Amino acid sequence: MRYPASIQNLIDHFSKLPTVGPKTAERYVFYLLKAHPEWLQGFAQAIAELKEKTTVCQTCLTIAETNPCSICSDQKRNHSIICLVADTRDLLAIESTKQYNGLYHVLGGVINMIEDIKPENLNFKQLLNRLKQNTVKEIILAFNPDLEGETTSMYIVKLLKPYKIKVTRLAKGLPMGADLEYADEITLSNALKYRNEM
Amino acid sequence: MRYPASIQNLIDHFSKLPTVGPKTAERYVFYLLKAHPEWLQGFAQAIAELKEKTTVCQTCLTIAETNPCSICSDQKRNHSIICLVADTRDLLAIESTKQYNGLYHVLGGVINMIEDIKPENLNFKQLLNRLKQNTVKEIILAFNPDLEGETTSMYIVKLLKPYKIKVTRLAKGLPMGADLEYADEITLSNALKYRNEM
Repeated sequence: MRYPASIQNLIDHFSKLPTVGPKTAERYVFYLLKAHPEWLQGFAQAIAELKEKTTVCQTCLTIAETNPCSICSDQKRNHSIICLVADTRDLLAIESTKQYNGLYHVLGGVINMIEDIKPENLNFKQLLNRLKQNTVKEIILAFNPDLEGETTSMYIVKLLKPYKIKVTRLAKGLPMGADLEYADEITLSNALKYRNEM
Repeated sequence: MRYPASIQNLIDHFSKLPTVGPKTAERYVFYLLKAHPEWLQGFAQAIAELKEKTTVCQTCLTIAETNPCSICSDQKRNHSIICLVADTRDLLAIESTKQYNGLYHVLGGVINMIEDIKPENLNFKQLLNRLKQNTVKEIILAFNPDLEGETTSMYIVKLLKPYKIKVTRLAKGLPMGADLEYADEITLSNALKYRNEM
């Protein structure tokens, strides 16, 4: 005896999600078996409608409800700064700080040799198109501080050289609440190297 | 700016699954945004149909495609032995050994004082009903070897005393591949206590 086909089918679907193995998928399905039928229908509908109700902003390439998105069409924002991010989640993380008033450009990932993600797989062409209007004065690189993020940053600095645009990147240093004793060497080295005057 | 409503709605649904927090839910949704539309519709349908296509066997109370389930209606199986399990997943784990040919009874959980699961919340009434036919000769207790499993076992031994049915339980001892050096004391004590003659 195996699981009823409808249960196995749903387990198979859940198993495709990142970090979800068959045992976790089983747990999810058995939770859903006890869930309220109405809520279950809502869940199914949310998945079915996911792609219908979202679009990609053709300016900054973020996932949004409208094209252009609410950020690109906001005339109160500073259109002379573009913050480069790997994906929409990073964009939303920066938005949640409420400290940034410029625009964004979603690259769709970072250069990654191991996963074979090359510059031509990312949204560089669209970025260069946006720069043609000559209104952009600064580009902020907001990638994760890891090997892929650094590689991508280096590539962009080279790519943007002819444009004479200021290129900056997120500060490196100790995160809030860090413990010097347990900080890794690179973080601590960066904190020293980029120390600020008080 | 927050997530588009349709994305937030799906994140909220995923967050309700056991062990899934908002960050994991986000990850799932962003994976689904890249998934094939047809597969996504299949996923939605699998959730929508989950309860429609499954039923509970009114004899052994397992989740199944039919009532009675394929096990209870199989005349080739030994109907004089009932294996008591907490839920359908445990039933399937035992089935997958292909070593058991009797019937099952799904209790729907185990007695748990902390979570306030009392005997009256479990399927004991249905079990006693099955015993009225006087065809059952042995009951195997197949609960997890923990406090709740032990409590439930003790309760059942007392409950079944008037019925003069043999009550057995799964063997305790070292699991395959165990390392004596790292085995916990209770496991090792049990392995000694229940040692077998070669």
